[in-house]
Amino acid sequence: MDLCTMDLRITRQRGFLLFIFTCSSLLHGSRGEIPSKPTGGVTILPPIKPDNGPQAFPDAEKENMPVFTMNYSRIQIPFEITLWVLLASFAKIGFHVYKKITVWVPESCLLITIGLIVGGIMHSVHEEPPAVLRSNVFFLYMLPPIVLDSAYFMPTRPFFENIGTVLWFAVVGTLWNSIGIGMSLYAICQIEAFGVQDINLQENLLFATIISAVDPVAVLSVFEDVSVNEQLYIVVFGECLFNDAVTVVLYNMFNFVAEMPVVEPVDVFLGVARFFVVGFGGMGFGILFGFTAAFTTRFTSRVREIEPLFIFMYSYLAYLVAELFSISSIMAIVTCALTMKYYVEENVSQRSCTTIRHVVKMLGSIAETLIFFFLGVVTITTDHEWNWGYILFTLLFAFVWRGLGVLVLTQIINPFRTIPFNFKDQFGLAYGGLRGAISFALVFTLPDSIGRKQLFVTATIAVILFTVFLQGISIRPLIEFINVRRTNRNLDTINVEIHCRIMDHTIAGIEDLCGQWSHFYWKDNVPVVIASYHDAQRK
Amino acid sequence: MDLCTMDLRITRQRGFLLFIFTCSSLLHGSRGEIPSKPTGGVTILPPIKPDNGPQAFPDAEKENMPVFTMNYSRIQIPFEITLWVLLASFAKIGFHVYKKITVWVPESCLLITIGLIVGGIMHSVHEEPPAVLRSNVFFLYMLPPIVLDSAYFMPTRPFFENIGTVLWFAVVGTLWNSIGIGMSLYAICQIEAFGVQDINLQENLLFATIISAVDPVAVLSVFEDVSVNEQLYIVVFGECLFNDAVTVVLYNMFNFVAEMPVVEPVDVFLGVARFFVVGFGGMGFGILFGFTAAFTTRFTSRVREIEPLFIFMYSYLAYLVAELFSISSIMAIVTCALTMKYYVEENVSQRSCTTIRHVVKMLGSIAETLIFFFLGVVTITTDHEWNWGYILFTLLFAFVWRGLGVLVLTQIINPFRTIPFNFKDQFGLAYGGLRGAISFALVFTLPDSIGRKQLFVTATIAVILFTVFLQGISIRPLIEFINVRRTNRNLDTINVEIHCRIMDHTIAGIEDLCGQWSHFYWKDNVPVVIASYHDAQRK
Repeated sequence: MDLCTMDLRITRQRGFLLFIFTCSSLLHGSRGEIPSKPTGGVTILPPIKPDNGPQAFPDAEKENMPVFTMNYSRIQIPFEITLWVLLASFAKIGFHVYKKITVWVPESCLLITIGLIVGGIMHSVHEEPPAVLRSNVFFLYMLPPIVLDSAYFMPTRPFFENIGTVLWFAVVGTLWNSIGIGMSLYAICQIEAFGVQDINLQENLLFATIISAVDPVAVLSVFEDVSVNEQLYIVVFGECLFNDAVTVVLYNMFNFVAEMPVVEPVDVFLGVARFFVVGFGGMGFGILFGFTAAFTTRFTSRVREIEPLFIFMYSYLAYLVAELFSISSIMAIVTCALTMKYYVEENVSQRSCTTIRHVVKMLGSIAETLIFFFLGVVTITTDHEWNWGYILFTLLFAFVWRGLGVLVLTQIINPFRTIPFNFKDQFGLAYGGLRGAISFALVFTLPDSIGRKQLFVTATIAVILFTVFLQGISIRPLIEFINVRRTNRNLDTINVEIHCRIMDHTIAGIEDLCGQWSHFYWKDNVPVVIASYHDAQRK
Repeated sequence: MDLCTMDLRITRQRGFLLFIFTCSSLLHGSRGEIPSKPTGGVTILPPIKPDNGPQAFPDAEKENMPVFTMNYSRIQIPFEITLWVLLASFAKIGFHVYKKITVWVPESCLLITIGLIVGGIMHSVHEEPPAVLRSNVFFLYMLPPIVLDSAYFMPTRPFFENIGTVLWFAVVGTLWNSIGIGMSLYAICQIEAFGVQDINLQENLLFATIISAVDPVAVLSVFEDVSVNEQLYIVVFGECLFNDAVTVVLYNMFNFVAEMPVVEPVDVFLGVARFFVVGFGGMGFGILFGFTAAFTTRFTSRVREIEPLFIFMYSYLAYLVAELFSISSIMAIVTCALTMKYYVEENVSQRSCTTIRHVVKMLGSIAETLIFFFLGVVTITTDHEWNWGYILFTLLFAFVWRGLGVLVLTQIINPFRTIPFNFKDQFGLAYGGLRGAISFALVFTLPDSIGRKQLFVTATIAVILFTVFLQGISIRPLIEFINVRRTNRNLDTINVEIHCRIMDHTIAGIEDLCGQWSHFYWKDNVPVVIASYHDAQRK
């Protein structure tokens, strides 16, 4: 009978299913669950036999045929996932019904706020939060759809026109931020008054790497709302997607170094080697799976109903294989999407194409919503360690080094650019460096051997909330105030399109004549080579 | 070092990743996995240090910075699911490239055959099969998309015109089969020569219930290939979908009774009560979630990108809630789909509508493919108990009682039908009673307390393979031979459509005048009432 009472309490705590208690004859057993198994099932037995029980069950003390059974643990996982997704979807509907809010406050801020409220409620009833952002769930199930969405709908032409700048910011910018913030924080740690002398250089660098990762989710949701000009958008966009490689390498390197007594020169060399393995490895897998996907869709003309599945499966496989080898999975899925998109959309039917686009958008959108939502929830339900000095200086350094980095890096890259970044663009780049779920997930995966992990978690959350709320809310008025060039997309008429293409081909021809092969040559020739092979195969 | 060797062996057994061994410096640690955790990770360390190791790693005995790491256990689940889905999709492409095969052999048979081959390979290398059909995975993740697919694309008009016949076959037919086969098998068990005297009446009835469930997946895939006439199709279709309620009740009842010393009259009463709870409960949840979904889509006009998600979430929720209370989840999802479809397709955008239809079809199709495939795999990898007498008589009785049942039940229902079933239709109905994955999943969930569970498993597999292969392959030539009326769908011109509607309204009006309310009245008025409420809300 003790077991029954406990089970009842568990069920009561869960907050629903209360109406069940009115039923009088609830017995064990359910389809698909072996009744003899004693654990797992939330079984509800009549707690106290009432004296005036209903006449229909005259012998309820003996186990009769059950009219009504339930087994919550069996459906718990899919049920709770469905409920979370529905809750997030409702929030999204809510914001758009009251359109006035989202004009001033980015959706990400609203979602975090709702998450904070839900987290508060869950915390007050001692409900365990879902372990989404602390575990592999984030990297294995939430991040891939978001990155696939970003990559699939990436404006290809401006991206490849700015690829140099993108890589420059992604690689050098992230290194700059990590080392700058890490060193500065180490200097701060030497001040006795803050009481953080036990954090050594390696741990500071590790922490700095975590908060250097500019987050695609946070940044893009704000930049899309604000609709800044294409160059700015694509550089921040690209930086977010590609700094993953650098962050992963640095994170693993500092994580490894933090547990190591001495650092040898060979480790530095191996670190650099690892950077190339991570970056080009991810790219390689992406290209491989992208072409395989493009090739597979040539044979799907008779199985149109499962056509879109191949796109999702191959992208995901690229991501997973990259994760398997701890190389840049974001690089892999981005490259895969970019590689296959052109061919796939030619091969599949019109309906499949609509479905692919809609589903990619849908999954990305809901994963994004869920992440911000959980960010709020987990912020409340985590144990924090607050240290004014360390956290405030973290905020300051994160802001200052980002600003300095953009200033210096744009000065270096500007001479090589057709349209150089002006001061306003620099402001947009620096101010758009929002941190988000990637930092959050990375800080939770820190090994427990790091003494001040709690402090790092708190500081990371502070940086995320600071950048998402303060910068996220103020970026729109500021950009409007200083009059940053706004979007110039959606202006392409067919006339413009045709002239651009003719121009491209002409430049590529001139380059060919001169014997100087630049990106026009590659843009012009590589797809032609592949397409002609493709056409030859078709005949 | 022992651990390393063991890990290597595990990886080798898994059959891939062999090329990894060529790399010389593979160390532990991966993003998103706490390195200090010792279990779970498939870590690969250099097994034997070669004397002439590469010069780049001069001190490989000491742990250097890892250039290359891998962690299989972390991505195992999504990775293997993706691979299975891809394998099944390739099989589907393969059949359609060699179109000649599928004309004579139904796709389900081909898939089982491939499953048998893969199962054989897995068995020979002692690989564990995926526990898909033995566990809740089938009921929680594979069945819902299939049933949603069937229900969403169900031809509504013929279905409601034949609903009486459908319910008649679903309820009375399933009872007839279960009791008939169960009793006959019990009689066989009394013959000493077969050596199955230890199977009592309750166990025989339980087993008979399991193999009475006509499977929507098996039947529909054959009937769609053959394209029989609409009446026949819709009756078999409806029977498959709705006999779930009866099967679930009978299964739970006999399962309960099998462990019970004596059966009291009150248990029979409770069993009947449970049948109504299961059937109408499922229907109630379906209607509830269907209308909620329809209502929700009225507010999604600004969040078009997540619109389709609501359809999937609500249908799935209806299914899960029904599973929670062990009521007919198939009823719930079918009713939900039927209820919401009309309103949802009016509310959502054209693109969302295409996406919903395509995704429903896609998920249903791939789940179906996977089920047949796994059916083959698990058939090989299961331990069997073979008993000639019992299994042959099971096959015989399953066939005979189905035939007798159809004969008797059509004789009773024919006077009430506008188009009575002729002998050819009866043959189609009887011969189309294929058993499939539902029986398979149910027999595996039998409690271990049943002594001859192994025999029941083997007999169920025998019935499934017999019906799917022999009946499935021969049904097309036989139907062509006896010239069963073929499909009369796709004949509706707008003219026919308009006249049908006018006819419906006229009959409903005449019924109204006569004061006699039949199904024309309900068909005509119920949607009007809801639609006018709906319109009033919109203004």
